[in-house]
Amino acid sequence: MRLTLIAAQSLDGFITRHDTPGSEFASEADRTFFREALRGFDCCVMGARSYREARTTIQKNLMPERLRVVLTRQPESFANDGVPGKLEFANTPPTQLVADLRQRNFQRCAILGGAQIHSLFLASGLVDELWLTVEPLLFGGGTALLAQRASVKLTLLSSQNLGPSTLLLKYRVEK
Amino acid sequence: MRLTLIAAQSLDGFITRHDTPGSEFASEADRTFFREALRGFDCCVMGARSYREARTTIQKNLMPERLRVVLTRQPESFANDGVPGKLEFANTPPTQLVADLRQRNFQRCAILGGAQIHSLFLASGLVDELWLTVEPLLFGGGTALLAQRASVKLTLLSSQNLGPSTLLLKYRVEK
Repeated sequence: MRLTLIAAQSLDGFITRHDTPGSEFASEADRTFFREALRGFDCCVMGARSYREARTTIQKNLMPERLRVVLTRQPESFANDGVPGKLEFANTPPTQLVADLRQRNFQRCAILGGAQIHSLFLASGLVDELWLTVEPLLFGGGTALLAQRASVKLTLLSSQNLGPSTLLLKYRVEK
Repeated sequence: MRLTLIAAQSLDGFITRHDTPGSEFASEADRTFFREALRGFDCCVMGARSYREARTTIQKNLMPERLRVVLTRQPESFANDGVPGKLEFANTPPTQLVADLRQRNFQRCAILGGAQIHSLFLASGLVDELWLTVEPLLFGGGTALLAQRASVKLTLLSSQNLGPSTLLLKYRVEK
C-alpha cells in the first residue's frame, strides 16, 4: 500500500490562515484538484479535528470505494458516526494502522492531516509521496504544515500550475 | 527604486534548520543563484543578526557597485565597521530608508533578511517582488520566513528549477 500526504499551504508553510480553522484560503483550483485526486485512493486517514471540521460533507459522501479512517484518542466518542468499511475511528499507531489496512487489501492511502497527523505519519517513515498545493499567500502565522520538528528530505517529482499563481508540487519522501 | 525580497526556505517555510543560524541548508545551486542575482542590485538591506553571521564574507567583498545597509537599533555599536557608500548602519524605518536611498539614486534594492527585516519591509508595503528558493526539505521548526503575522497576496511571475529538486519561485507582491 502506498501512502501519499496531500495538503494545501500558504507559500510560507501554514495550513490555516492565522487562527481560522480549515483551509478556506485554498483556491477553487485546489479544491477541484483535491476532489479529483482523492478518486485515486481507496482509503484516507485524517485526525479528529479535521473530521469534525468536514463532518457534514464527509457524512454526505460516504462510499464503499474509499474507506475513511479517523485517528482519535477517543474512538468511543464517535461510536454513532462509524460505518464499517466507509467511516471508521481508530486509536492505533500509524505502523499498526497501515499493517491493518494492508491486510484488508487497501492499495493507496491518502494522509489528509492536520498537522499532528502529518508529523505522526512522516515520523513513522511510512509516507511515500507528498503532494503539496502552494497558494500565493503569506500568513506569517497559523497552523504549520508539521506539528513537530523533523528532518525530512524530499525529491521533486513534478511541479505544475493548478491556477495562474497556484502550484502543485509533488515530492517523493526519501527514507 | 524597486525592492526585491530574496530568501531561501525549506518547503514548509523555515529560513533556518531548527536552531542552527544561517542558511547552511541551502543547496549549492541556491548559493550560485544568490551570488549572481545580487549583481543585479545596487543596494541591499539586512538585519544586524544576518550581518553578524556573514560579517567576514561581507567585509571581504565590499564594493562601490553595491551599498550594503544594515538595519540595527544600535548603529553606534558598529561604528568601526562602517564604510560610507559600501557598508552603512542605520536605525531608520523602512519608508524613510527607502526615501533616502531613492534620493541617493539607487535603483534596485535587495531585502536580504532575516525574518524581522522581511516582516518589516512587507508590512511597509514597499516590497515589489519576492524571489524565494524552495529547498526540498521539511524542518517542522526553525526561524519562519516572516517574524509577524501578515496577509500578503502574491502573483506568481515564474517558477524555475535551480537544481533537480530546488525551485526558484518569483512572485509579485500585490499592494
